[in-house]
Amino acid sequence: MRPSKRPADALREVSLETGVNRHAEGSCLVKFGETHVLCLASLEERVPPFLRNSGKGWVTAEYGMLPRATGDRMRREASAGKQSGRTQEIQRLIGRSLRAVVDMGALGERQITVDCDVIQADGGTRTAAITGGYVALAECLKWMETRGMVTRKNVLKGHVAAISCGIYKNEPVLDLDYAEDSTAETDANFVMTGAGGIVEIQGTAEGAPFSQDEFLKLLDLARKGIGELVEAQAKALGDA
Amino acid sequence: MRPSKRPADALREVSLETGVNRHAEGSCLVKFGETHVLCLASLEERVPPFLRNSGKGWVTAEYGMLPRATGDRMRREASAGKQSGRTQEIQRLIGRSLRAVVDMGALGERQITVDCDVIQADGGTRTAAITGGYVALAECLKWMETRGMVTRKNVLKGHVAAISCGIYKNEPVLDLDYAEDSTAETDANFVMTGAGGIVEIQGTAEGAPFSQDEFLKLLDLARKGIGELVEAQAKALGDA
Amino acid sequence: MRPSKRPADALREVSLETGVNRHAEGSCLVKFGETHVLCLASLEERVPPFLRNSGKGWVTAEYGMLPRATGDRMRREASAGKQSGRTQEIQRLIGRSLRAVVDMGALGERQITVDCDVIQADGGTRTAAITGGYVALAECLKWMETRGMVTRKNVLKGHVAAISCGIYKNEPVLDLDYAEDSTAETDANFVMTGAGGIVEIQGTAEGAPFSQDEFLKLLDLARKGIGELVEAQAKALGDA
Amino acid sequence: MRPSKRPADALREVSLETGVNRHAEGSCLVKFGETHVLCLASLEERVPPFLRNSGKGWVTAEYGMLPRATGDRMRREASAGKQSGRTQEIQRLIGRSLRAVVDMGALGERQITVDCDVIQADGGTRTAAITGGYVALAECLKWMETRGMVTRKNVLKGHVAAISCGIYKNEPVLDLDYAEDSTAETDANFVMTGAGGIVEIQGTAEGAPFSQDEFLKLLDLARKGIGELVEAQAKALGDA
Amino acid sequence: MRPSKRPADALREVSLETGVNRHAEGSCLVKFGETHVLCLASLEERVPPFLRNSGKGWVTAEYGMLPRATGDRMRREASAGKQSGRTQEIQRLIGRSLRAVVDMGALGERQITVDCDVIQADGGTRTAAITGGYVALAECLKWMETRGMVTRKNVLKGHVAAISCGIYKNEPVLDLDYAEDSTAETDANFVMTGAGGIVEIQGTAEGAPFSQDEFLKLLDLARKGIGELVEAQAKALGDA
Amino acid sequence: MRPSKRPADALREVSLETGVNRHAEGSCLVKFGETHVLCLASLEERVPPFLRNSGKGWVTAEYGMLPRATGDRMRREASAGKQSGRTQEIQRLIGRSLRAVVDMGALGERQITVDCDVIQADGGTRTAAITGGYVALAECLKWMETRGMVTRKNVLKGHVAAISCGIYKNEPVLDLDYAEDSTAETDANFVMTGAGGIVEIQGTAEGAPFSQDEFLKLLDLARKGIGELVEAQAKALGDA
Repeated sequence: MRPSKRPADALREVSLETGVNRHAEGSCLVKFGETHVLCLASLEERVPPFLRNSGKGWVTAEYGMLPRATGDRMRREASAGKQSGRTQEIQRLIGRSLRAVVDMGALGERQITVDCDVIQADGGTRTAAITGGYVALAECLKWMETRGMVTRKNVLKGHVAAISCGIYKNEPVLDLDYAEDSTAETDANFVMTGAGGIVEIQGTAEGAPFSQDEFLKLLDLARKGIGELVEAQAKALGDA
Repeated sequence: MRPSKRPADALREVSLETGVNRHAEGSCLVKFGETHVLCLASLEERVPPFLRNSGKGWVTAEYGMLPRATGDRMRREASAGKQSGRTQEIQRLIGRSLRAVVDMGALGERQITVDCDVIQADGGTRTAAITGGYVALAECLKWMETRGMVTRKNVLKGHVAAISCGIYKNEPVLDLDYAEDSTAETDANFVMTGAGGIVEIQGTAEGAPFSQDEFLKLLDLARKGIGELVEAQAKALGDA
Repeated sequence: MRPSKRPADALREVSLETGVNRHAEGSCLVKFGETHVLCLASLEERVPPFLRNSGKGWVTAEYGMLPRATGDRMRREASAGKQSGRTQEIQRLIGRSLRAVVDMGALGERQITVDCDVIQADGGTRTAAITGGYVALAECLKWMETRGMVTRKNVLKGHVAAISCGIYKNEPVLDLDYAEDSTAETDANFVMTGAGGIVEIQGTAEGAPFSQDEFLKLLDLARKGIGELVEAQAKALGDA
Repeated sequence: MRPSKRPADALREVSLETGVNRHAEGSCLVKFGETHVLCLASLEERVPPFLRNSGKGWVTAEYGMLPRATGDRMRREASAGKQSGRTQEIQRLIGRSLRAVVDMGALGERQITVDCDVIQADGGTRTAAITGGYVALAECLKWMETRGMVTRKNVLKGHVAAISCGIYKNEPVLDLDYAEDSTAETDANFVMTGAGGIVEIQGTAEGAPFSQDEFLKLLDLARKGIGELVEAQAKALGDA
Repeated sequence: MRPSKRPADALREVSLETGVNRHAEGSCLVKFGETHVLCLASLEERVPPFLRNSGKGWVTAEYGMLPRATGDRMRREASAGKQSGRTQEIQRLIGRSLRAVVDMGALGERQITVDCDVIQADGGTRTAAITGGYVALAECLKWMETRGMVTRKNVLKGHVAAISCGIYKNEPVLDLDYAEDSTAETDANFVMTGAGGIVEIQGTAEGAPFSQDEFLKLLDLARKGIGELVEAQAKALGDA
Repeated sequence: MRPSKRPADALREVSLETGVNRHAEGSCLVKFGETHVLCLASLEERVPPFLRNSGKGWVTAEYGMLPRATGDRMRREASAGKQSGRTQEIQRLIGRSLRAVVDMGALGERQITVDCDVIQADGGTRTAAITGGYVALAECLKWMETRGMVTRKNVLKGHVAAISCGIYKNEPVLDLDYAEDSTAETDANFVMTGAGGIVEIQGTAEGAPFSQDEFLKLLDLARKGIGELVEAQAKALGDA
């Protein structure tokens, strides 16, 4: 029995709210249960040096946590003077995931930065950030489309969403919350496209190593969960 | 005429919502119109080195802005590797303001850190942070009172709230929003107690120097505004 | 009775010595009693990026303290790897104060940096720095005038000087030294022009909040003190 | 055809040389073809704060690259003043991988730090570092066993090794070198134990998303490669 | 002919003024012509960790330059966020030089930090700092002696002073000023005791390599100059 | 008797191996006994700002130590976030030494960076780095000569090599190893050209000051040692 009483293959309640910031070109407040991440997409008419005069654009992401997003207050990274290894690892993952569904030529020589800031954490912040970050990105492209800058469906090659799975008390379960995550034997994050292609897999044995069979069960759960997330994304974007 | 059509002595719509974070001992989402600041109070059973074994506690504050809280995206301070002078100046002000109404002996040897993170900015973030920070601090003391750790009314010597005033197109006005703030000739921040005592005054001539008369008009406006904010605080805390 | 035996409205002995550095375009060693600040103005034929091709110049200030300027040795900021919040707050104040009396168009596209380094501290270092910084700035403009670069009286719209006041043992007093500053109930810094306009006001209740009446008494004291400082500036510059 | 002419399921020539440093308690120079990583294990009689008085030890890893380990010289991280996100990500992976096969209670309250410094890079530095890092760690435990501090086979629960696989020109291949890695459509790193348990999986679509089938082919290749690496480890340690 | 018209073996005018700071336990403003360095010795009742409970003390030095001590304004190191390699090299040299004449056992478990801040630079700042730093250190020991903490002559094993020499237009000259230093072919700094022992030698060929003969001529000049500096030190300390 | 049983004027076994890195334009692994330094020269078609459009090139050096190059593991500088004063001092010395034998006009507007990374330390790392760095630099110039970019003998004005000497148990000895270095009374580093010109001298009294006679004995030893090193360099470069 999961602490949240959810069935093994059930997501937490998912909410994807757009239009939550008056300044950002695209915005989405994503909630996976008690995990809340504010995703804001900012458009800039410049690209990193390695893309100048290439005709291609860039999508990047940054990740942060408010100091008291977690059970114990953590030191503010701006005050510590550097981003932790964990933070950098997560923001690199979000950026790669979003770039996987973007046609940089169709975007043109512009950069979209997706800031994912965790307002409240209860496990799964990186998967929520990718799922909500996609919506913020798509909103930004809608904003650009309205102004005749791009055609959204040319830039976006498909949906991308992410979910975690794990082996909790010997049972494979979908969408770990913090109570599960902190004691799971195995923890894996999956990033997939709307068409079911795999973009990124990260699996880690926290306790004993896991087997190929166990891993495939987690992959099945992820596929189901991501299907539901993609539907929620489409609905939030008014594409359903 | 003010851009927002408000009368010269009118605050923006003020909202002080408590209980907005599941982890923090005290929390308040404060809105001064389109300026939104999340204030989270964290209790820790330790004090800074200079207070060890003194029997006294400490209250401190940290301030941050999400990179896209503003019209143009700003660089993330955690990524830049340091907090700007402006950030440090503001968080020092918030801390001093809150400490002005706390009896550190009655608090006991504990530290309360109030994190004020600007989710969306439209002028007046520091005054909103002080006003909402007070509510988060009071909520934290209620949490402690429930557990028999302190008596709230012994720790808190009164309310503290803050508001900005300025001279906009030659007229003294209350509670500047960004459209006014960016062109005001004079900009002043006032921090006062519920009893009308002055805790902090900061007045700056952005253009021509100002006169004593002008300054006193700003102070009058501030007194009116802070009276209304203190009422809103009491209501949010269930003390009204 | 003040520790220094001074009357409540008396400044410490003020000295403003020019020509104290062989390299700087303008220089002034300012002494407010035992507080000694070396102010050096450096002219550079460049402006910050936001002013390029604007035809306008810029004046900025930096502030530092020798590690043993104070009673206890403080850590060297260059070794600590960052400037404290206090340092940044002060240098921002000095810069704003000096800019308040400069016509940036008349200066032309050049930057003057005024370095204010505290050689010895005994309270009031920021007000001494503004007062001496003005003299160093004016000396720099004289140097430029000699070379036909500017007309000093076109660039400088007036004098600017600063003084602190406070409530010490229930009495409003002028120009706090360290013995007073460290125990004063209220501490305020005033920056004014030679014509009596207010450029900046910063008042802080260190203990109990203060009243409007008390504040106005401090302002009166400041007005008197700044009048004397402006006279001393004129004399030091040979304008008296 | 692979640039190196290797069959799809062939490792590069592997070399694991021990005893390569006179100071370190355990050392191994690992070569995967032209990728050379020096792994040095250092024993310290202290543990991180969170383990004090727990009776348990800790194993951690650090990773670095000489500036000219790569085709173009990279900036020295010590001079840049921080470790890149990539560096931190890799050293966290190495640490997790090594800890997966260590019984921290049997190690006792001591820390072993495994420094993995890339002397020359040609793709696969992180997998070489894990594979060689295990040997350095085991050598360190032999050193400790000689001195009666631990029993090696109690501390080490098994071997751990790592290899990369990828889809290069539509064909799944084992142990990518730089020429392959820089153009592969999919790149995955696998960390497994000697018994075939999976410790960590990281798969990334560099171009188009990949399918479950493709992923399973990579996993098969990895299993074969890691089997050979474990044999080489046993031989290097004199356990074969 | 030297730019300053000095004979080849002549020092610039030397001034060593004590009692120049009201807070420091020992102080000396040293002038080698237009090079002015403020040396302040601070006594602290603590030692670095490696000396705790050793019964021995420590002497260390820090070095800094005001940004406009030089002809062109340099960036403030506190603002740059780090000390330059040159600064660190110089402060390490000053510290070693002063320690060479101190009996750490006789000092007892205390640390004396000598801050050497260059107020104005015209070549030879490090040699002036060592020479003046010795005086500040001796003043500090006098202060301690007055309070019965140490016996100065037991702590100080002798004088230490320093001077630069160089080959300027093919002629060996003593005590280079900036005009000479910036064009000299060879530049050497010598640190010696009052008894003529060599503490430190640093010689650098700026242009062509130099010969042993040339070097010995520089050493002779240095010996003469340091003799005069030691006399000046004794006079400044009232020991002459 | 020296710990290594060497005669007073004997170098440790010297080895200079070229061609040790597949990427660098010039490379040399230098061994002075158990001190091993990897020297890699990287050519870049750019120069520092102060040389742009000057027609002249630049040679610079960086120095680092693997954390466990030494008997006790040291903190990784990249992780500490800055290079130590010692590191900066050494890399500045290596750079100056190499530049002393390079004709920057003949090199043309290009920069060669020589990275000297200590793989294993046993005293004398800086002198080994200079000696091996010269070989890496010469190898780089050979590489350039092959491509018709420069004429090596026009760029290199001669050899440069370095050695340490010291007074160990009252006897002057050549090429200190760690056992000697850590207890020597006097420690000196000499950098000389193949023609016997002195490029740099650094002598430090670790205990009692030393005399001119002692210093000249060290210089004689250094001259002998450097002669042997220059021969070894020529042989390694195939010039013998």
